[in-house]
Amino acid sequence: MTDFNFEDHSHRRYNPFTGDWLQVSPHRGKRPWQGQEEDTAEAQKPAYDEKCYLCPGNTRINGEKNPDYTGAYVFQNDFGALTSDIPQGEMSEGEFFRAKSERGICKVICFSPRHDLTIPELDVQAITKVVELWKKEYQELGGKDFINHVQIFENKGSVMGCSNPHPHGQIWAQESIPVEPAKKQVKFGEYYQKYGRSMVLDYVYEELKKGERILFENDYFVGLVPFWAVWPFEAMIAPKTHIASLSEMDAAQMEALADAYRQLAIMYDNVFKVSFPYSAGIHQAPTDGQNHPEWDLHMVFYPPLLRSATVKKFMVGYEMLANPQRDITAESAVKILKSQPKEHYKV
Amino acid sequence: MTDFNFEDHSHRRYNPFTGDWLQVSPHRGKRPWQGQEEDTAEAQKPAYDEKCYLCPGNTRINGEKNPDYTGAYVFQNDFGALTSDIPQGEMSEGEFFRAKSERGICKVICFSPRHDLTIPELDVQAITKVVELWKKEYQELGGKDFINHVQIFENKGSVMGCSNPHPHGQIWAQESIPVEPAKKQVKFGEYYQKYGRSMVLDYVYEELKKGERILFENDYFVGLVPFWAVWPFEAMIAPKTHIASLSEMDAAQMEALADAYRQLAIMYDNVFKVSFPYSAGIHQAPTDGQNHPEWDLHMVFYPPLLRSATVKKFMVGYEMLANPQRDITAESAVKILKSQPKEHYKV
Ligand SMILES: O=P(O)(O)O[C@H]1O[C@H](CO)[C@@H](O)[C@H](O)[C@H]1O
Ligand SMILES: O=P(O)(O)O[C@H]1O[C@H](CO)[C@@H](O)[C@H](O)[C@H]1O
Repeated sequence: MTDFNFEDHSHRRYNPFTGDWLQVSPHRGKRPWQGQEEDTAEAQKPAYDEKCYLCPGNTRINGEKNPDYTGAYVFQNDFGALTSDIPQGEMSEGEFFRAKSERGICKVICFSPRHDLTIPELDVQAITKVVELWKKEYQELGGKDFINHVQIFENKGSVMGCSNPHPHGQIWAQESIPVEPAKKQVKFGEYYQKYGRSMVLDYVYEELKKGERILFENDYFVGLVPFWAVWPFEAMIAPKTHIASLSEMDAAQMEALADAYRQLAIMYDNVFKVSFPYSAGIHQAPTDGQNHPEWDLHMVFYPPLLRSATVKKFMVGYEMLANPQRDITAESAVKILKSQPKEHYKV
Repeated sequence: MTDFNFEDHSHRRYNPFTGDWLQVSPHRGKRPWQGQEEDTAEAQKPAYDEKCYLCPGNTRINGEKNPDYTGAYVFQNDFGALTSDIPQGEMSEGEFFRAKSERGICKVICFSPRHDLTIPELDVQAITKVVELWKKEYQELGGKDFINHVQIFENKGSVMGCSNPHPHGQIWAQESIPVEPAKKQVKFGEYYQKYGRSMVLDYVYEELKKGERILFENDYFVGLVPFWAVWPFEAMIAPKTHIASLSEMDAAQMEALADAYRQLAIMYDNVFKVSFPYSAGIHQAPTDGQNHPEWDLHMVFYPPLLRSATVKKFMVGYEMLANPQRDITAESAVKILKSQPKEHYKV
């Protein structure tokens, strides 16, 4: 029998940020596919669309009119999943029926007035405006008494449930710390207790030493595929020096984050020469009024495409019921991503 | 201000089976949808398809020929994510790089020789044959030394990553206990320690007393929407008496499970008058050679459709990065499901 190796043999990997395990089945790329294929016909989009409720000057469903904004622009979500004006209530009945009201604020952030551009097609200056607005919102929302967590994210592409192609992201700020950041809070806290250092920074340092999962770096940030990545082309942008949250970022760091975001998005688009769908967002210190030396802000990217522009990875049956599972290794994904040209395929 | 109520106001609910929290945003049904719509054009399927690798008598990609099976039929997956013939290996390097080989066996189980039928269109006798085969496989696979967990599941519909419309399910048996069942193992164990009783049975009993989330019952099983359901029409089939695993089921109980499975699948199809997609499967005692009085087998159903046959709930951005979130309450879903006729809409 040949020796065990991670490139050919089924194995599990541990995610130290959450405590979860991942199933890797590298040999599985060979299986035939007769299932659903996504539509990639990208309609040529106009720079301005009069029917788009995110374009400058247009009127939204609630009758409000967007200003003629020129850079990044934020407004309160007209159909937010969380609102601040609800009465408070709680239910706690034995072991099985526990619930409590949850207040929050949901916002939409347009990345550009241009209806037809996406992050990889914007320049670093324009993306820096987005990062600046993130910082402002994180501070303002997080500064409110009843907001303990601010989740900034982007759903890109209709396959990721994005309901409008105008480049935009969202911010959901709320009372409780949601499940995923809460897991990291625990693990980062334990690590800090044990070593007096940040888990994220120590991990970035180890990956920089090894080099094999690094996609790129600039002055302040590193793009890498984590050892325990779940999605086929999952990646992370993490800092090289301590940055607990957006609040602590200076102008140079914000520009560096914008640059990293853009570099990764260009790699993605180039893989299958399509606008690469993903959900992405920032995990950072909660806004609970405490000090968080154990936290370092990092951006995570979960893209679903697997084999081609039309065949995605389905996280269904086994993955929903039992365990996340991936079909190519993190290291193979790095090779594919790193071999892409640095310029966007459309240029 | 009006009083807080669960039908109108954003809240969180606790899942005592896993320890996770869920975000509920009941007011969110009103938001407009301009995003992706699923294709529901159901091509008329033939009873036998010569190009289907699951139909009786056809040859699979590895050259093997399916027998002329007449009931449920099981075979080893030609492209299994888990295989038993791999060398063993382990990596444990500091805090960040932990991985180990994972052996297992993957099987495919055809529910019927008929290419054109699905569970809600089969009769109870035919579905009972499926349950009997599940039991046999759970015992045989679970009986192997290196198999500690057997996950039985079904992906129904192309939107759930099902790569062949021939009615079938899968079985993934493996060394480790996967993440989701492992969470339940912990919670059921704690509950058993504390009360000396099974958490599943106590929960079923509480729901039967309340009645408001019960979909149906027969002699041995109850169909209900759990208080903490995540997916729009998520449901559970759970026993009324102690059944730790398929191993313990007698003929009458197997028929009752088949009947419950069929009743729920008919309700689903009737909601939007389409073949309702879902991932479903059984959580039951691990096959680790220990006694599991804390476990009761239950089937869970995760269907993605939300507003109509073409608009599904996307578990993306916020849900992936932060917290599972649903837009209608469990109680509203019960009302919709219960108001369906008992006969399949095609009859
Ligand atoms: O094994 P299949 O049907 O080819 O594949 C399907 O189910 C598997 C188990 O849930 C998933 O890992 C795949 O992503 C999905 O497409
Ligand atoms: O808010 P949107 O863009 O309408 O909705 C999208 O993102 C949300 C947050 O990830 C999800 O809950 C929705 O399922 C998805 O369609």
